[in-house]
Amino acid sequence: MSILAVGSIAFDSVETPFGKAEDVLGGSATYFSVAASFFTSVNLVAVVGEDFPAEHLEFLQQRWINTAGVTRTSGRTFRWKGSYGFDLNEATTLDTQLNVLTDFDPQIPEHYRDAKYVFLGNIDPELQLKVLTQVVRPQIVACDSMNFWIEGKRDALLNTLKYVDILLINEAEVRQLAQEPNMVKAAHKVLAMGPTTLVVKQGEYGSVMFTAHSVFSAPAYPLESVFDPTGAGDSFAGGFMGYLSSTNNVSDEAVRQAIVFGSVLASFNVEEFSLERMRSLDIEQIRHRYRKFQLLTEFKGVD
Amino acid sequence: MSILAVGSIAFDSVETPFGKAEDVLGGSATYFSVAASFFTSVNLVAVVGEDFPAEHLEFLQQRWINTAGVTRTSGRTFRWKGSYGFDLNEATTLDTQLNVLTDFDPQIPEHYRDAKYVFLGNIDPELQLKVLTQVVRPQIVACDSMNFWIEGKRDALLNTLKYVDILLINEAEVRQLAQEPNMVKAAHKVLAMGPTTLVVKQGEYGSVMFTAHSVFSAPAYPLESVFDPTGAGDSFAGGFMGYLSSTNNVSDEAVRQAIVFGSVLASFNVEEFSLERMRSLDIEQIRHRYRKFQLLTEFKGVD
Repeated sequence: MSILAVGSIAFDSVETPFGKAEDVLGGSATYFSVAASFFTSVNLVAVVGEDFPAEHLEFLQQRWINTAGVTRTSGRTFRWKGSYGFDLNEATTLDTQLNVLTDFDPQIPEHYRDAKYVFLGNIDPELQLKVLTQVVRPQIVACDSMNFWIEGKRDALLNTLKYVDILLINEAEVRQLAQEPNMVKAAHKVLAMGPTTLVVKQGEYGSVMFTAHSVFSAPAYPLESVFDPTGAGDSFAGGFMGYLSSTNNVSDEAVRQAIVFGSVLASFNVEEFSLERMRSLDIEQIRHRYRKFQLLTEFKGVD
Repeated sequence: MSILAVGSIAFDSVETPFGKAEDVLGGSATYFSVAASFFTSVNLVAVVGEDFPAEHLEFLQQRWINTAGVTRTSGRTFRWKGSYGFDLNEATTLDTQLNVLTDFDPQIPEHYRDAKYVFLGNIDPELQLKVLTQVVRPQIVACDSMNFWIEGKRDALLNTLKYVDILLINEAEVRQLAQEPNMVKAAHKVLAMGPTTLVVKQGEYGSVMFTAHSVFSAPAYPLESVFDPTGAGDSFAGGFMGYLSSTNNVSDEAVRQAIVFGSVLASFNVEEFSLERMRSLDIEQIRHRYRKFQLLTEFKGVD
């Protein structure tokens, strides 16, 4: 099953203690799509400006990503500038230029509308809902969001969440959305808003999945060198949805495997700037690291 | 195998968003010993003041804890006062009264000296070494420490670590000890200081174990109600060492199981103030939660 993915394409300028990169390819939909493309084809909906070079689109196309839904409009591509300190946990945003994203009004191409797996990247929840009105009975809808929308567009977000199966947000956002400091209680409050599955991203500590009847905890892969955390959450979501749609199965067992594949993709992505590591990655390396996650977490039962 | 445990016994006054407790039984050696006592007998070495009531010693004795090494001296028992905010991650110390701990000079009773499993609680590293000089060829020496000693008695600590097999400290302490921000690199620097096994405690995120050839990550148990985090690290260490010494096996497999048992004991301990939860706990509840940890972490391989 292919995935319909909606979100941002950006030029990022990033500074970490290990180096800096200027105007490199970024954006949530870009990371998501490239990570998912190791498992399935992706139909991408996004907007870029006149300054967006053909080589970036060609890169996406080479990776089974259909860019018919990427609109080019007058103006400059969305730009984000940020820096990380030694702990690499949180980016400090230095500059955000929405540019063409300001008037983003996602139009789903006709041949995308029977999408069975939909990923609503972190955009205005009203636009997320507008995407859903353009697709016909999707099987699985996954969604990302952030503190900005939880705070500023809470009602719209709550409305969108009614139609979402899987919500992927970070732990501070779960607490903020549920208005509850305890993670277990907060998770169950979020599940009552619509999603049947909540995936809580915890950065360097991994992730936790909650459903009404199951909880699954996966660590992050311990890396000797984390170069640039930008896009970790989006590549996690891409690996996660890519695997799910490739198996066309959302059982508890498959969702757990998908979370590990998401963690694998995120772990590779942070090893280099921008999407550089994913350019040279292959499915054998992904499977190899999946097996390392098994070694990392396995322990024997007791009688 | 019984365990020789050296550390502090305290009266704690704790305030959390959920309630407060005054002058309740606490101290690292107390939490450690009671947690370990679900698996094995413990020979405890500590010091208390004249104000320490007989009922507390009787409680320890009822739990297979030998208190022949608990010295009562003139003066008041060590007191710690702290509070936690809603995130429950870190205690704010409001008051520390060392009292009888100031002149603590651990004397190991004659019949403790053939101890095979030794736990050096978080005390002055010079005293930790002094304990080791009083035992005859222990099989496994585990050790706790803290930022105070890493900063203030670094050379003494490095000297003690030469004789330690298993070091259990938190992640900030690992980075501080290794003087290295990346956890994987820091862990290997610490392993080069002496210990063959490093257990990194990560609070609500669980723990990670490093050896030269293995890495194991275990989550914390997701709890709906964390009442009082005091003693979580010490009850983790107690469950960990208790299980290891009861199996008398320190293979990679046994150490992984021990970490899960440590996580189980820590998860119970934080459910109530002081050691209250461990007073009513039994081995069946411990095994039941161990199995819940299996459900929490298990995922299938891929072909």
